[in-house]
Amino acid sequence: MAIKLYGTAASTNVLRVMACLAEKELDYEFVNVNMSNKEHKSPEFLSRNPFGQVPAFEDGDLKLFESRAITQYLAHTYPDNGTNLIIHDPKKMAIVGVWIEVEAQKFDRFGSKLAWELAYKPMFGLTTDETVVEEHEKNLEQVLDVYESRLSESKYLGGDCFTLADLHHLPVLKYLFGTKAKRLFDARPHVSAWAADIQSRPAWVKAITA
Amino acid sequence: MAIKLYGTAASTNVLRVMACLAEKELDYEFVNVNMSNKEHKSPEFLSRNPFGQVPAFEDGDLKLFESRAITQYLAHTYPDNGTNLIIHDPKKMAIVGVWIEVEAQKFDRFGSKLAWELAYKPMFGLTTDETVVEEHEKNLEQVLDVYESRLSESKYLGGDCFTLADLHHLPVLKYLFGTKAKRLFDARPHVSAWAADIQSRPAWVKAITA
Ligand SMILES: N[C@@H](CCC(=O)N[C@@H](CS)C(=O)NCC(=O)O)C(=O)O
Ligand SMILES: N[C@@H](CCC(=O)N[C@@H](CS)C(=O)NCC(=O)O)C(=O)O
Repeated sequence: MAIKLYGTAASTNVLRVMACLAEKELDYEFVNVNMSNKEHKSPEFLSRNPFGQVPAFEDGDLKLFESRAITQYLAHTYPDNGTNLIIHDPKKMAIVGVWIEVEAQKFDRFGSKLAWELAYKPMFGLTTDETVVEEHEKNLEQVLDVYESRLSESKYLGGDCFTLADLHHLPVLKYLFGTKAKRLFDARPHVSAWAADIQSRPAWVKAITA
Repeated sequence: MAIKLYGTAASTNVLRVMACLAEKELDYEFVNVNMSNKEHKSPEFLSRNPFGQVPAFEDGDLKLFESRAITQYLAHTYPDNGTNLIIHDPKKMAIVGVWIEVEAQKFDRFGSKLAWELAYKPMFGLTTDETVVEEHEKNLEQVLDVYESRLSESKYLGGDCFTLADLHHLPVLKYLFGTKAKRLFDARPHVSAWAADIQSRPAWVKAITA
């Protein structure tokens, strides 16, 4: 198959690409990388991603890594498949671009650390550090306050339509919603409606149950 | 003037946009934001950037924030001005996209913290934390090892041409090159040649001496 995704489905960064592939209704081969065997640090894998991290991606002779670069490639290269995830008006697309950056620079920074402490550590039998949790919950709340205001003006972060700016949040949302951090979303009506909306998208439901 | 940039030229994130405006040979008005007076937390400024950070940007009726979203907008909206910073071949552009992400996710994470400890703290009369410096120098070295290998294969990070993937590094490079962290670049011949090349670009020299 032309498209191959290398990683493990437990990784939020891999899930981000799976969410995009599902929205674009693209067939692909999932190649499991055994991280407990350090397969992601093998020479073979390092030739796919020199940082030794999942995901890595292949479409024919093109090799990519970095989850958000892969989703951009898919959205732009397969405009006619599945859901359209980009906007052609350059000014509207620039606004989408702002919220794509906000996810990467703000939401993910705190959201991923919380997901690690609250969701992954217990899975691995490690002890959650409540001081870190408290600090990052505070940081995340400040981000969610901005989201609450933004989502009271527009249905999605980038504007009227679902775009990559929303999609990129799905994996970390999924993990945080299984922890006490869900209350930070529940406390904000527009954020809560948005999170429910995007998490119930058929493509996402299919991606995480496949 | 249609284009306005709000911020302070001492900010690396503002400088990133100035670098792009210079390459695109675009005229603009620079609106100084007095951060010591907390002007960036005023209601007026928060309406430009709800996170209360510089830069903020305006082009006619379009308002943007997040430096890398602004440079993308400029590169795509003004393709015929100054230097072309994007590539039309979708596969080649996808590779540029990977290295744009690498700058934001890897280089900037460690580079900015080092710039804060080694360049900004001394300017503000604060004490550099050598433990933090040591930790982030180690992290940055791992990133630069990947760059050394990448730049032995292609002249620029994204490929044969200078693109946003290179440009986004300029502000943090400028600050780090005035500190002992410069030796980490000097020790890697391809990285060192690349850093010298992009820092001597006439548009960048003009941007930082204007
Ligand atoms: N910015 C990268 C982050 C990739 C990443 O952090 N992957 C993690 C799994 S979620 C990983 O491979 N960690 C193993 C390691 O860093 O050694 C992306 O978005 O793809
Ligand atoms: N990701 C943002 C970062 C902006 C940022 O961190 N700006 C700093 C100055 S370099 C700032 O305004 N700091 C003041 C604050 O956070 O209160 C961008 O790229 O524009």
